[in-house]
Amino acid sequence: MTPRRLGIVLLLAGMLAGQVTEMPLFRQDARILFQGDSITDGNRGRTADPNHILGHGYAFLIAAKYGAALPERNLTFLNRGVSGNTVENLAGRWQPDTLDLKPDILSILIGINDLGRGVSAEEFGARYDQLLAETVKALPEVRLVLGEPFGLPGGKYTGEAWEVRRAELRKRQAIVAKLAVKYHAALVHYQKVFDEAAQRAPAAYWIWDSVHPTYSGHQLMAEEWIRTVTGLR
Amino acid sequence: MTPRRLGIVLLLAGMLAGQVTEMPLFRQDARILFQGDSITDGNRGRTADPNHILGHGYAFLIAAKYGAALPERNLTFLNRGVSGNTVENLAGRWQPDTLDLKPDILSILIGINDLGRGVSAEEFGARYDQLLAETVKALPEVRLVLGEPFGLPGGKYTGEAWEVRRAELRKRQAIVAKLAVKYHAALVHYQKVFDEAAQRAPAAYWIWDSVHPTYSGHQLMAEEWIRTVTGLR
Repeated sequence: MTPRRLGIVLLLAGMLAGQVTEMPLFRQDARILFQGDSITDGNRGRTADPNHILGHGYAFLIAAKYGAALPERNLTFLNRGVSGNTVENLAGRWQPDTLDLKPDILSILIGINDLGRGVSAEEFGARYDQLLAETVKALPEVRLVLGEPFGLPGGKYTGEAWEVRRAELRKRQAIVAKLAVKYHAALVHYQKVFDEAAQRAPAAYWIWDSVHPTYSGHQLMAEEWIRTVTGLR
Repeated sequence: MTPRRLGIVLLLAGMLAGQVTEMPLFRQDARILFQGDSITDGNRGRTADPNHILGHGYAFLIAAKYGAALPERNLTFLNRGVSGNTVENLAGRWQPDTLDLKPDILSILIGINDLGRGVSAEEFGARYDQLLAETVKALPEVRLVLGEPFGLPGGKYTGEAWEVRRAELRKRQAIVAKLAVKYHAALVHYQKVFDEAAQRAPAAYWIWDSVHPTYSGHQLMAEEWIRTVTGLR
């Protein structure tokens, strides 16, 4: 290969690498929808014009950051989380609350209430799989972001009760990881982030009742979501 | 002066300069309290353990950022904003909601509801002055952060109605600036931030109804609050 040819190859490789590592997700007029349970809900707006109130959680932190930084991009962030929801609850309101909103990016965090109500890991996985199949059929261009359900010891779940719960959580995390591969979704490793944070401050500093993050915990979620999503191709 | 002496003088000057420009406010175990009206309230928690829910506004954004970044510092962020409050409303609940909480940093954003209810600028200033005098008497070590009341055209306030309102807002902004000087408080120039932002995107992108910021607007507030407060000595 001549030096000139080598130069061209290296230039093309560099351009390709640049494309791979940039953040192409927040394109002009993109619509980013957050779906889930109470962790996502965070008392979001429910009035006729709910879109400017995104609740007291990670969805708001992400929206505020990029909404302020990129006003020319005309991004729209939406939150349709509902406290207490399971996968089945999501399915029941999926058409008006997700498909009709035509998101470009759809972020889902679900599973902790399925666990709490005794839905087995297998049943949870089967229902979630069905919901995602329906989603990509209706929205073939959507980019999916799946958050793994997570927790830390606290509240009712300490000692043996936490060990049991952690084992059940791990099953759900493995299921969500498999679904992320199947549907080419980004997978946000919230559990890893909270496990590491619990080395720096007590669990209750990050998650006050084993389930719901504090303001500091929501910031960790937002940062991990951003790290994951901006690393996507 | 010998080179050695000069070196020592320069070293001491450098250390002093470093001390002046660092952020000494968020010291170990610091308690940071946000007070105000609906812009601060943002549907904050009101249950027995309300401290982990800071609402959907600038207070939450600031708390989340520093809570996650500095867990070893053991900071406590508190929000006691109440929708619809005037200065007189603050005074009525000041003992339990502010003085008893013994904040190290007290951030106040108030005035838009006084304006809306026809409290004159002079009366607003006199009542606010009295509240601050009471505050520094009870909490002589507190660091005060005063936010100027602000707005952008929108909702009921467009055209001539906005011009009238803007003139009234400017009077209140001047009063809060004077009180900041009198009480050695940091002054957060929210109006300037929103005026500049309105050059980049329509007013409603930042403040949807002339009064209440959107998620993007709250991020601008948080950033300006941080810029102001970290610049303090």
